[in-house]
Amino acid sequence: MLDRVLSTIESRKHQSLALLKEFLSIPSVSTKPEHKADMQRCAMWVADQCRFAALETAVMQTPGHPIVVAKNKHLPNRPTVLFYGHYDVQPPEPLDQWDTPPFEPTIRNGAIYARGAVDDKGQVWAHIEALLAWQAHGGPPVNITMLIEGEEEIGSDHLEAFVKFHQESLRADICVISDTNQFARGLPAITYGLRGIVYEELTVSGPIRDLHSGLYGGAVQNPANVLVQLLASLHRPDGTVDIPGFYDDVVSISAAERAEWSALPHDDPAFASAIGVRALAGEASYTTLERLWVRPTCDINGLTAAYQGVGAKTVIGAIASAKLSMRLVPNQNPEAIRRSFESAMNDRAPKGVQLGFKNFGCNPAIVTPRQGHGIALASRAIFDGFGTLPVLIRSGGIIGAVEIIKRILRVDSLLVGFGLPDDAVHAPNEKFELESFFAGQRTAAALYAHLSDL
Amino acid sequence: MLDRVLSTIESRKHQSLALLKEFLSIPSVSTKPEHKADMQRCAMWVADQCRFAALETAVMQTPGHPIVVAKNKHLPNRPTVLFYGHYDVQPPEPLDQWDTPPFEPTIRNGAIYARGAVDDKGQVWAHIEALLAWQAHGGPPVNITMLIEGEEEIGSDHLEAFVKFHQESLRADICVISDTNQFARGLPAITYGLRGIVYEELTVSGPIRDLHSGLYGGAVQNPANVLVQLLASLHRPDGTVDIPGFYDDVVSISAAERAEWSALPHDDPAFASAIGVRALAGEASYTTLERLWVRPTCDINGLTAAYQGVGAKTVIGAIASAKLSMRLVPNQNPEAIRRSFESAMNDRAPKGVQLGFKNFGCNPAIVTPRQGHGIALASRAIFDGFGTLPVLIRSGGIIGAVEIIKRILRVDSLLVGFGLPDDAVHAPNEKFELESFFAGQRTAAALYAHLSDL
Repeated sequence: MLDRVLSTIESRKHQSLALLKEFLSIPSVSTKPEHKADMQRCAMWVADQCRFAALETAVMQTPGHPIVVAKNKHLPNRPTVLFYGHYDVQPPEPLDQWDTPPFEPTIRNGAIYARGAVDDKGQVWAHIEALLAWQAHGGPPVNITMLIEGEEEIGSDHLEAFVKFHQESLRADICVISDTNQFARGLPAITYGLRGIVYEELTVSGPIRDLHSGLYGGAVQNPANVLVQLLASLHRPDGTVDIPGFYDDVVSISAAERAEWSALPHDDPAFASAIGVRALAGEASYTTLERLWVRPTCDINGLTAAYQGVGAKTVIGAIASAKLSMRLVPNQNPEAIRRSFESAMNDRAPKGVQLGFKNFGCNPAIVTPRQGHGIALASRAIFDGFGTLPVLIRSGGIIGAVEIIKRILRVDSLLVGFGLPDDAVHAPNEKFELESFFAGQRTAAALYAHLSDL
Repeated sequence: MLDRVLSTIESRKHQSLALLKEFLSIPSVSTKPEHKADMQRCAMWVADQCRFAALETAVMQTPGHPIVVAKNKHLPNRPTVLFYGHYDVQPPEPLDQWDTPPFEPTIRNGAIYARGAVDDKGQVWAHIEALLAWQAHGGPPVNITMLIEGEEEIGSDHLEAFVKFHQESLRADICVISDTNQFARGLPAITYGLRGIVYEELTVSGPIRDLHSGLYGGAVQNPANVLVQLLASLHRPDGTVDIPGFYDDVVSISAAERAEWSALPHDDPAFASAIGVRALAGEASYTTLERLWVRPTCDINGLTAAYQGVGAKTVIGAIASAKLSMRLVPNQNPEAIRRSFESAMNDRAPKGVQLGFKNFGCNPAIVTPRQGHGIALASRAIFDGFGTLPVLIRSGGIIGAVEIIKRILRVDSLLVGFGLPDDAVHAPNEKFELESFFAGQRTAAALYAHLSDL
């Protein structure tokens, strides 16, 4: 039966791409209030496609953006698979660095370019396409529940309450998520660990109005000067993060994992050259993969102060602000880290300014089982989809849902992702290679077959 | 005769304000390329007004914005006064903080609000108005040369070459500039010292594209992280500037000046409360006036990095940049300071990023004579205009022309300014109080009378 499903996938390539383009054309930028209507439209569009795959589908409102839930007819005596994905995307800025507009999906060099191409619309679409193909052959041999949210890129703020409220209806034996990468081109992967995050906006306010830097400079605190002092204080000269207690709960890496990762075909010069830097950086005595997967960080994600136009303006701005995120590893407590960060900033701020904080995400790191029946079945599915077995890896990213689904539904997630490391996730010219896209569809179709053996 | 000129000024108040509004409506923002045509239009407008004052006027092109030169008929045996002013203005941003639009001048609470109201269009207009009034009575009793440029706010880049080329034609006995402030409301001032400036834009470039902060964070230099480290390194914990050699040539303050300034009616709590801060700041063992007038600074005037929209984006930006200015005092060498700043930044930058520098101004501090016939005559003129004698002060601002005119034409400047410290120069809601404006017109008219005794 799987063979026939895979043939259907093969025959629908053209339609499948056309629909993905429709999906990618909707600017579902969850963080921007002006896209609220686009978010609704995108959820409705996803729901319609689920209905074409013969799923019973509902668009459920939340205090934020809607969540799409879709199910086939659940039968007793067969496993239930919860699929989790998201239809929201990151902001497309900086727009001038896109070769083609972010919401006008374009195919070139064997890839589709658009914001959300791989994160996560293309990967969600691979699964819906697999279900459409299964539908042509009587439907998949497992119970399916699709849970597709619109707030992954902004911290999945309303997912926890939603999953709690609907936990009976969302009960499942395993969860499948395709929001991660292959390890390298031709080397697919199952991801078993993700970092967590604390995302903060820090605002330094000084005078009630902008001041002439000649007439006031030297006699008042300049909020921008204070901001850079505060932000610089977050790192020690050796590159470690200087927030009290930051490393207290960090789990150290096992020798076994270190050895396993050192066998992966990772090459520092190639990694550096792919992103155009002459030298890598990070904590001493850790490899690049270790720095990315199991070491916590603190990165500035945005700086805003005073005059940013062309040329010069001699001004002391009334306000300066930064967006920054701390990537967390097992067992750091996000809420404790957030509190420690905020009190460190307040302790270090001089008189004459006031600090403000906004939190945009607080999720712990997570590790899913590396062994077991689920992993074995997913490996077989990847073999069917890609023609090769996967490696087991971690990722430096974060998918808040994994922890929520584990904690509330007590279900482990299989992170079976189809992207490539150079897909420019969250960056201009985000892409999804067509080969990855179709291998992903095949993998998803095979997964819904094999998981019937769970 | 002066009495009759002052009566004419009194009778022309309404017209004078209407013309100032026209002047202020032209968005002559010199730093922005999109305002190039406005700059031309503004120069032509100024030239037309000079012609109404019976001056022979030319709009002279430069490689940058045009310079207006206007003269009455120069007669032998009377002093020649060079008036210097500028018709360009600072950018109006942040626009949302203006109560009325920056280029729609509005009168309320006895003041005119607009970008350039006091810096420097309103003050230039006070002088042209004085000449218009003199014209009604046969013209002023001195030779006048007006030199009104369009690049003061961007470092007067082409003024030096212009003054050199036209030095015969610009020959004068004294220069008059109204681009400074009274010391306080009701306490007019002559300014005899100005700080200098080095204005730089620093760009930190890392990866060739923006990166996902989860997938790359911890293993590459984040240009925004590097930028804040570099900027924070510019100050020591005690607030002094940490650039090699920065203080080497700084002239220390004389006990006499310290004593004189401490007698001025300056009040720290009132100064702080006027700008809405709870505490002032700056180098220990200097008073606020000393910090502003004779101590050098380093202030960030702009920060730009990665995501600045609403909400969160987990990105490592490919580029981060800052605009910053160092205010200089006598005898610091701007070019040496600029070189030392750039090499300190290069020395302190880690591997994996590249730095770029752009200079937007390099001017030394200047001190003009505190005594002499010119100062005495200017004091009398201020008495005629304001009804009270001026105090002698310095300023933390910079007027590049003063040094150029001294060096090339060997002429000292009388800095007779009509603004108030709370006029919000370079900030939103810049204003010029009507009382200051008309007192300025009277002072200018009196100055052109009294300087005939030079």
